[in-house]
Amino acid sequence: MTDTDWGELAQHWLDRLADCSVPGAGVTRLPFTPEHRRALGVLTELMEEAGLVVRLDAAGTLIGRLGGPESAPALLMGSHQDSVREGGAYDGIMGVVLPVLALMKLRHDEVTLPFAVEVLAFADEEGVRFPSALMGPRALAGTFDMATLDLHDSDGITLRRAMEEFGLNPDSLPDLKRNPTQVLGWVEIHLEQGPVLESAGLNIGIVTGICGIERHMVTLTGKAAHAGTVPMHLRNDALAGAAELTLATETLAHETDGLLATVGALHVRPGVVNAVPGEVSLTLEIRALNDALRECAGAAITHTARDIATRRGLSLDIARTYAQGATTCSSKSIEHLCKAVATGSRSEVRRLVSGATHDTSAMAELCSVGMVFTACRDGISHHPSELVSEKAMTAGIQTLEQYLIQLQ
Amino acid sequence: MTDTDWGELAQHWLDRLADCSVPGAGVTRLPFTPEHRRALGVLTELMEEAGLVVRLDAAGTLIGRLGGPESAPALLMGSHQDSVREGGAYDGIMGVVLPVLALMKLRHDEVTLPFAVEVLAFADEEGVRFPSALMGPRALAGTFDMATLDLHDSDGITLRRAMEEFGLNPDSLPDLKRNPTQVLGWVEIHLEQGPVLESAGLNIGIVTGICGIERHMVTLTGKAAHAGTVPMHLRNDALAGAAELTLATETLAHETDGLLATVGALHVRPGVVNAVPGEVSLTLEIRALNDALRECAGAAITHTARDIATRRGLSLDIARTYAQGATTCSSKSIEHLCKAVATGSRSEVRRLVSGATHDTSAMAELCSVGMVFTACRDGISHHPSELVSEKAMTAGIQTLEQYLIQLQ
Repeated sequence: MTDTDWGELAQHWLDRLADCSVPGAGVTRLPFTPEHRRALGVLTELMEEAGLVVRLDAAGTLIGRLGGPESAPALLMGSHQDSVREGGAYDGIMGVVLPVLALMKLRHDEVTLPFAVEVLAFADEEGVRFPSALMGPRALAGTFDMATLDLHDSDGITLRRAMEEFGLNPDSLPDLKRNPTQVLGWVEIHLEQGPVLESAGLNIGIVTGICGIERHMVTLTGKAAHAGTVPMHLRNDALAGAAELTLATETLAHETDGLLATVGALHVRPGVVNAVPGEVSLTLEIRALNDALRECAGAAITHTARDIATRRGLSLDIARTYAQGATTCSSKSIEHLCKAVATGSRSEVRRLVSGATHDTSAMAELCSVGMVFTACRDGISHHPSELVSEKAMTAGIQTLEQYLIQLQ
Repeated sequence: MTDTDWGELAQHWLDRLADCSVPGAGVTRLPFTPEHRRALGVLTELMEEAGLVVRLDAAGTLIGRLGGPESAPALLMGSHQDSVREGGAYDGIMGVVLPVLALMKLRHDEVTLPFAVEVLAFADEEGVRFPSALMGPRALAGTFDMATLDLHDSDGITLRRAMEEFGLNPDSLPDLKRNPTQVLGWVEIHLEQGPVLESAGLNIGIVTGICGIERHMVTLTGKAAHAGTVPMHLRNDALAGAAELTLATETLAHETDGLLATVGALHVRPGVVNAVPGEVSLTLEIRALNDALRECAGAAITHTARDIATRRGLSLDIARTYAQGATTCSSKSIEHLCKAVATGSRSEVRRLVSGATHDTSAMAELCSVGMVFTACRDGISHHPSELVSEKAMTAGIQTLEQYLIQLQ
């Protein structure tokens, strides 16, 4: 096989996996469904073709293992099998296919590794079906909360029942906890879901960490009024206040390296053409790899919101509704992966931060982690038009193969 | 009767009229309904008590006439009988009750006018039931569009059918057109619907004109994106652009005397916490008594929107969807009414602009017009808590009485 054949082979398997979907636009493959079952069949076929020993654990994670007895320390690689509704054919699942092909390529190149490798296909990372996610990696890390099993999907089916009907025994989830000394590390390859690599003309980038996230719910309340009868100086316009806050948030993030801040949702009441808005609620999201920086930005924006409200005679309700710390990739993984890019795909090495959460975030509770991004077309993901080029997938397979070789 | 008794009497009749409502909060009295019919009964009783000769015209306008033969020139006064849904007990209907009481007070004060006066209760000014309004005054001015009769309400009933079932003959609407030489003028008294008079500690104000209005529909389109994966400098955030436009609009109106501008409705797509907004649509409304100033402001804001869109890499769609010219009250009416305030209620005379549209706007197509505002509590209207004090209504009756005396 030539180098480019590997990307083509990846595309072939991803096409077959994309067929494991609810009918409709793009790919819809939720956990513990007939589509999940079909995908497990295809993945098992692929893994066995690469010489892996395949099993399904109690969390619904498909595990293909290469080399060594069950008890030998293993390097873990993988990603998730599930998609969002009407999502793409690469997000998650590509991170299962490429490591398997990297192991196949190693065999093709007649390299035998002196350690075991497991490739994992987690059931649920997107959290679309149940209001929870990351059960697979959390079970391995011993951080899974068993109360999660009582959450239910929109049809009223609990996670426990969905798993049992899928043939799993959720009561044995605690037994999945791995001994950290038996784990050599974790590496995930995933599409970037952003435009950075593509705009730099690169196929591959090495992730230095995954941003922490915090979310705030903000409500500004002024006084709804007739847009014709209340002079400008007697208004308490909640939307004008919200507009100031939106721009202040954008400016802070623009001027601060490593900070992302977004006002994503905004609702106006009464929201009619001839009324001064009386109330606006909006969401504010802040992401940074540096937790202290993120928390400082949250405090600064809260302070700005108070200033705006006071100056405009609005009342302010602001509450942090969600916070999740950042994940740092191990410097050793970063170093090895960067070297692997240089050796494997012989391209410029670009380091970047992941703004999105991944299975890697949960795996970091178990072991040192590393992560590789492939470029994706127009930065689009979670959409039927999501695409990773065969060239980028070839580079991904080469990078993983070189990484494994260097670990020897 | 003492002076204050007149305000109390007005309140008594307005309470009876407020009962002519659909059950529920506040007053709901739409045109050509059983509630409208009951209100006509109460108004007829009031008008006949004041010595007026009462009739219903083909537009559903109740007309009470005092003095002279049918052909003698008459001064017209009045307002509308209808309310918004769950509105207040004063908007419109108070402008029918107070002129009748002013005529009653004239008789009480033993003054006989040398001209005829007609008090009019128009059927529909709010335009809540049918997507049209002001049929009554437009029929008098000869500006009513007969095609309006084919519009229908939310139950599919056409205006024509609603009128016919109310016992009216819409085909004879063109016959209602008045000869301008037979009309001495029009005066309307209405609650201010804003906070200006109350904040100045005044009961009464004289309106110099009714603002023109224009409305624009604006859509800014950028690129929806993952809030974690797209760096700030690669975003085309439609909401940030809309926030700039909202603030620029507010600033222009703040800095320009006689200009009101409002962003009242704003919708964000996709509108979720973790997505950079890809599209925002918003409404922009501009009001001014000076039509040239209003149009200049509309052009300036359009220009600003283009600048913002270009700078932020957004596409802009902006369209003026509505425009209505201003109505100027006649300088003679303003002068007489100001003198009447000074004589009648012996208070400071305040001139102000009406930002809301009234029956007066349509009557201005027929004759010279004048308008009086009463203060309203907290500037609130179109709400069950709408209130005009008895003191302010007394001042209103005194002002109208003095105006009629001065016209002799």
